[in-house]
Amino acid sequence: MTPFKLTDEFLAEIEQLIENKKDSTLESLLEEVHYADIAEVINELNQEEATYLIKLLESDKTSDVLTELDEDVREGILNNLSAKEIAKELEELDTDDAADIIGELPQDIVQKVISEITDKEHAKDIVDLLRYDEDSAGGLMAKELVKVKDTWNVLACVKEMREQAENVTRVHSIYVVDEEDVLMGRLSLKDLLTASSTAKVKDIYIPKVDSVNVNEDAEEVAKIMSKYDLEAIPVIDEIGRLVGRITIDDIVDVIKEEAEKDYQLAAGISQDVEADDSIWELTRARLPWLILGLFGGLGAAGIMGGFEDMISKHAILFYFTPLIAAMAGNVGVQSSAIIVQGLANDDLKGSVGNRLIKEMLLALLNGLILAAILLLFTWFWKGDFLTALAISLSLIAVIVVAGFIGTFTPLFLNKRGIDPAIATGPFITTSNDIFGILIYFWIAKLVLGI
Amino acid sequence: MTPFKLTDEFLAEIEQLIENKKDSTLESLLEEVHYADIAEVINELNQEEATYLIKLLESDKTSDVLTELDEDVREGILNNLSAKEIAKELEELDTDDAADIIGELPQDIVQKVISEITDKEHAKDIVDLLRYDEDSAGGLMAKELVKVKDTWNVLACVKEMREQAENVTRVHSIYVVDEEDVLMGRLSLKDLLTASSTAKVKDIYIPKVDSVNVNEDAEEVAKIMSKYDLEAIPVIDEIGRLVGRITIDDIVDVIKEEAEKDYQLAAGISQDVEADDSIWELTRARLPWLILGLFGGLGAAGIMGGFEDMISKHAILFYFTPLIAAMAGNVGVQSSAIIVQGLANDDLKGSVGNRLIKEMLLALLNGLILAAILLLFTWFWKGDFLTALAISLSLIAVIVVAGFIGTFTPLFLNKRGIDPAIATGPFITTSNDIFGILIYFWIAKLVLGI
Repeated sequence: MTPFKLTDEFLAEIEQLIENKKDSTLESLLEEVHYADIAEVINELNQEEATYLIKLLESDKTSDVLTELDEDVREGILNNLSAKEIAKELEELDTDDAADIIGELPQDIVQKVISEITDKEHAKDIVDLLRYDEDSAGGLMAKELVKVKDTWNVLACVKEMREQAENVTRVHSIYVVDEEDVLMGRLSLKDLLTASSTAKVKDIYIPKVDSVNVNEDAEEVAKIMSKYDLEAIPVIDEIGRLVGRITIDDIVDVIKEEAEKDYQLAAGISQDVEADDSIWELTRARLPWLILGLFGGLGAAGIMGGFEDMISKHAILFYFTPLIAAMAGNVGVQSSAIIVQGLANDDLKGSVGNRLIKEMLLALLNGLILAAILLLFTWFWKGDFLTALAISLSLIAVIVVAGFIGTFTPLFLNKRGIDPAIATGPFITTSNDIFGILIYFWIAKLVLGI
Repeated sequence: MTPFKLTDEFLAEIEQLIENKKDSTLESLLEEVHYADIAEVINELNQEEATYLIKLLESDKTSDVLTELDEDVREGILNNLSAKEIAKELEELDTDDAADIIGELPQDIVQKVISEITDKEHAKDIVDLLRYDEDSAGGLMAKELVKVKDTWNVLACVKEMREQAENVTRVHSIYVVDEEDVLMGRLSLKDLLTASSTAKVKDIYIPKVDSVNVNEDAEEVAKIMSKYDLEAIPVIDEIGRLVGRITIDDIVDVIKEEAEKDYQLAAGISQDVEADDSIWELTRARLPWLILGLFGGLGAAGIMGGFEDMISKHAILFYFTPLIAAMAGNVGVQSSAIIVQGLANDDLKGSVGNRLIKEMLLALLNGLILAAILLLFTWFWKGDFLTALAISLSLIAVIVVAGFIGTFTPLFLNKRGIDPAIATGPFITTSNDIFGILIYFWIAKLVLGI
């Protein structure tokens, strides 16, 4: 298959059909289109058109479409739907997706929507899920799962499973619980298929099963599931009772969001924005970092003002300030990015001290090579060996300090419980610019004996 | 569960036990440890210790350990194993993992290892997989799957499935093929459980099934599977025959690697390195970008040298060059990161022209706000309005141009089939440094009427 590619023509056709209220043409046109693709179409429509389409299509399809929409588009559409209409959509969804959508609604609507859900068991499960923080295992899990009691026999199992499977999109595992609903283990489908129908569950189940606590951090769950190649993991409460399960597709979303967030932070974008967001939203995400950079630049200008007396005799020193700032920034970002990734992947071993020493040795090696190039270039350019030497020695010092700051800052933030990813990007470049220029002039002054 | 955390004490204990050849203690100590965690331990051991442990443990466990090891560690261990020993490990693995490992071996060993595999069917499947590029669907897929013929009845199905399921770790879907092995559809486990045992497959199967071509790009497969929330996808050859299947856990790895690569490129790290790699490996990954930055800085210094006559009267202009370079770099990185992400997520709509206009408007808005702050600050600092104005106007121009370059470059590279992610990080900051400083002095000169 090739994934659906939304074209301007297709979009124009849909808009035209909506305008002319060609319901049956719309229905047959979208019949074979995947809900994730319909969501892409709707993201591009205006609020009235979007609502029209959601109301027109079958709710077993539109409910899935709703889960895939951009948050602001979904909000606009739900505003146009009655509590009863929203409830109808939610009945079609798994509890985790339903809870995610309800969680976005204003508090006064939530109550009404829930009371309109006719399947009371489903409503209760959704309300249960609303209690959990969205960045926790509880916030990721769904209530839909297949569980059997350890006292049952295989025949009863299969009968129960058929009933439960009705509500479960994908059966990953059959969980075994005791009378108190405490998770005991799991049953493999293979064993169930091959066991005699009078065999007891307690004799054929696998007593070892990985699980996560309902309060576990979502990122941690993602790490566990991807490290151990799990496609689903049961979630238990404080006393070991099975309360839900998390599937790998939700984890894929967590991993992607996490990577995007780190990437955006490294690029100096502080909120989750996309290229198609408004100029205002994009400005709000970008301007704070630029202002930080501006103040860094003003600080650097202030430092250079303090070395004003050097400008008449050693103007060349000032020509190299962008180079010094750039090198300090680049080395800092490289160092911090490696540490941030190491922290995210849990593969930093050994002490902080050793890591700092290693990074400074690495910076020293890079610094020596770069300084050698710079020395030769500057010497030939201006024919003044002492100045060239001063600039090159400064560069080494600046690079070593930048490596130190780039390594230390994320480790320090992480220790203090702050996301180390904010130490990449503009934060590290700005502070390294200032430190770099200060060190540069200070060492140059020393070497030149001014 | 809390994921295993490798401690220095545990590592020391393992090393001690290996040295003293305490085999049974080692075996019982590692009995309950997950293979992914044993791989973490082995990554930290030296080559002799690692080989010792691999030879000691059961091959159903060590084979999985091998798949999780760092590539260089695995290479070292395999060098110490005979073809027969390697073959034994590969017999335990799914074909996709076995093919990945064989793909890393020297050509002359491959032949020997394959001839030592006793399960000839398994060996043939592995050889088949070796044909495919590792970044294609064929390179990701495994041969293990459950398939039934459309002419069978349910009873025959269940019997066949039991046999096939022996070799398949996780049954995601039961694929239905015709006599020529052409993929027809899939069979839901639910339907199979509820259908009568004499029902024919062709009457109960679902004729609609997503599949990918064996030559499809791995990244594209990842996009399809994560967009459509698929946990497994069948792979077909050019004439529609079912040749393998890809599972979501392989896709999670693709997504993570892709994100890490983009992140590292943005940070100016050109090879896949980790914090624990050697100083030499880290230098090779980082130095090229630093040298690029160095030449950028030399270029900037050269430009400033060209404006030498301004330094006596307008020294302050030179103080602001790090600020100008930093702002040009930051804006460029922000713009390119947004575009690179948009391209990766396939959500850039509309023409290139519109996108450039939008980005330049955005840059203009940011530029005006930042220039206003800069104007006030500089005016108060030096009391010279005209210079302050010159610097601020230059800043606006620099930011707009930086936004343009940051937006245009990744779009251009992408059009030419080059990974747009290389346009983030040092590449964009360096070129923006040079352009920025040139524009800055040029406009300042114009405004100050020098």
